[in-house]
Amino acid sequence: MRIEKQRYTERFGSIKIHDVQKVLELDSGRKANSPLKEAIAVDKIEEDAIKGIEEKMAVVIPTKNEKLKLFEGVISGVPHECLIIVVSNSERKQTDRFVMEEDTLEQFCHYTQRKALIIHQKDTVLTQALAQAEYTGLLEDNGKAVRDGKSEGMVIGLLMAMLAGKEYVGFVDADNYFPGAVWEYVKCYAAGFSTSLSPYTMVRILWRYKPKVSGEVYFRKWGRVSETTNKCLNSLISAKTGFETDIIKTANAGEHAISMKLAKILPYASGYAVEPQELVALFEDFGGVLPVANQQIARQGIEIFQMESRNPHFHEDRGTMHLRSMLLQGLSTVYHSPLCGDVTKRMIAKELVTQRVLGRGEKPAKPHINYPPNKKNIENFTNFMAEHLDSYSVLKE
Amino acid sequence: MRIEKQRYTERFGSIKIHDVQKVLELDSGRKANSPLKEAIAVDKIEEDAIKGIEEKMAVVIPTKNEKLKLFEGVISGVPHECLIIVVSNSERKQTDRFVMEEDTLEQFCHYTQRKALIIHQKDTVLTQALAQAEYTGLLEDNGKAVRDGKSEGMVIGLLMAMLAGKEYVGFVDADNYFPGAVWEYVKCYAAGFSTSLSPYTMVRILWRYKPKVSGEVYFRKWGRVSETTNKCLNSLISAKTGFETDIIKTANAGEHAISMKLAKILPYASGYAVEPQELVALFEDFGGVLPVANQQIARQGIEIFQMESRNPHFHEDRGTMHLRSMLLQGLSTVYHSPLCGDVTKRMIAKELVTQRVLGRGEKPAKPHINYPPNKKNIENFTNFMAEHLDSYSVLKE
Repeated sequence: MRIEKQRYTERFGSIKIHDVQKVLELDSGRKANSPLKEAIAVDKIEEDAIKGIEEKMAVVIPTKNEKLKLFEGVISGVPHECLIIVVSNSERKQTDRFVMEEDTLEQFCHYTQRKALIIHQKDTVLTQALAQAEYTGLLEDNGKAVRDGKSEGMVIGLLMAMLAGKEYVGFVDADNYFPGAVWEYVKCYAAGFSTSLSPYTMVRILWRYKPKVSGEVYFRKWGRVSETTNKCLNSLISAKTGFETDIIKTANAGEHAISMKLAKILPYASGYAVEPQELVALFEDFGGVLPVANQQIARQGIEIFQMESRNPHFHEDRGTMHLRSMLLQGLSTVYHSPLCGDVTKRMIAKELVTQRVLGRGEKPAKPHINYPPNKKNIENFTNFMAEHLDSYSVLKE
Repeated sequence: MRIEKQRYTERFGSIKIHDVQKVLELDSGRKANSPLKEAIAVDKIEEDAIKGIEEKMAVVIPTKNEKLKLFEGVISGVPHECLIIVVSNSERKQTDRFVMEEDTLEQFCHYTQRKALIIHQKDTVLTQALAQAEYTGLLEDNGKAVRDGKSEGMVIGLLMAMLAGKEYVGFVDADNYFPGAVWEYVKCYAAGFSTSLSPYTMVRILWRYKPKVSGEVYFRKWGRVSETTNKCLNSLISAKTGFETDIIKTANAGEHAISMKLAKILPYASGYAVEPQELVALFEDFGGVLPVANQQIARQGIEIFQMESRNPHFHEDRGTMHLRSMLLQGLSTVYHSPLCGDVTKRMIAKELVTQRVLGRGEKPAKPHINYPPNKKNIENFTNFMAEHLDSYSVLKE
């Protein structure tokens, strides 16, 4: 894979935010023997380096009643060396869709001889393990099951990846029409990790285009939701640094990956707030404006990569309601951050009114935020789950 | 890449036609150290083997006034080791679209340091070289330029690949929305060549789905045109063998690749007839019904692979007229084959009437067929072109 070198980086406290790097070539061929002419402008990530990262990476696919054909395509795109972890919140009563997912995954793993874990979000052993870790924020109020929501599924996946001893965790949505795009996202994750200088690294995908289907196909560069969330998050930074910036271009990036060291210290907001909240939390903890959360980590620095994929992003259409919730929840994390000044708050309120998400004078509700794993007794979780790990594994030894 | 093994093969004279093999996994990871458990059902094509083929492969992209963004995406998906050959028939007068394509290709090759050739279909040197080879069927009646048409572009690309000393030539359309799909096609080509036992090999791609956009997205498995052409071509075989068959599933496969040895002996029909005609010609020459064209080749055998890609095929919509021409021209090659019996002829005539392409009693016109390269004085062509090769190369030494 060839990607543009980091051409521009902004620093916010201990955080390096790299400007968007475009993928130039999906497949960059054999290992180069001599230094590359183009190296001043382009990074060639050798396949051996990519595979080295993939071997340490779990790819988490949260899913809920997704079309099986899509699910099947998505898993077939995940590079072989990665551990697939499916966290499903699909229906089990009328039709047991979870069993169908399990079957599909098992058949795939049988013929490709690869490992995968699959767990249901409402699994009772899982609930017990989380209770042992006192990770009660993830549970429903009665404590009997994990809360609904993709964000909670992501955290479960993350914990399972930790349990499997992985060093990186990447997230991929189950509703992608193109296996080849999934493949590219994972390659981008690996490329970011392999060029990062810090053990605290995040890679976020920017879609090159997102086809809008309305009679004919139109390739949108920016969705309105992303545009607005990026703008408000950039405003939050600008207000602190005194320099206007547009560095954040991936505030809502569902497709993203985190080094385990970083993933452990991040909080995870519920719902669509999760992706912007990761950035907001980093800005709060390591932006240097509020007291630094951890000096040791601050010294090593945090790197955020934003990679523009070559493939367009073509996924299931979720409709307008979905977009409104996404906007509201995403902006609520910015709004409620202690870093958020009046200018940004006014901007957010105005956007929410203009885009008919809130009425005039209404404020976005505070998002529910799940504690970072390292604030919980994760050892209890892993000890408890380790005994049952085999039952979540699709290919029995 | 992991693909299903050839589970079923039909033989027609010296031709082996393998039934569809599905791609199971886009990226099958590191080289296996021990024999694979799944090897009885699945072929794992190691990346080293794939790259070994790609180094000997030219990927020909015929294009005509295609959107530059699509063209740019397509070239970025072609694996690095392949030589890209663009044969353009784009406008040069009002707007010089050819220069824009040249620029795009050059910028891409500059940053990825790879080789590519680009030639205009109406290039005057090219015309002279073809005249030297007495390849006049490719030229307009006045002999002043190459005929319009994608098929003629393919032949030019093939000749350029021969000139560049390549052993395999793959064709990829310039209007594909997904670079990741292009990448997969080339991997499929390489997988086919690397598992073939014959130097005379063809790999044809079957799209898993083709999204139809009409308000919402619907994934069609079979287009009506393909269905009909496959049916009629299968009928042609069945009538000769006495056993009904549905082995041909890629009669119209635009995405296909041919070993150079085979490409040299194939005729190329004009227009949409080109892809079915390749099969018809093989059946005529090596099916064992008519006199065998070349005993030596017949002894070595010919292998036809049909690979089902994981990625859907999502490309520019060409409208109904396009589909009708495709059907008419494709079926005309079957209709006019000396192998085609009355039953198949009646089937074709009926389909063309039902699908409103021809009136009752009308017959499809004979397609224009360009001679196989080996029937022409190709040495004259290559000698003449070799002197000018540098001017078609985008990265000057």
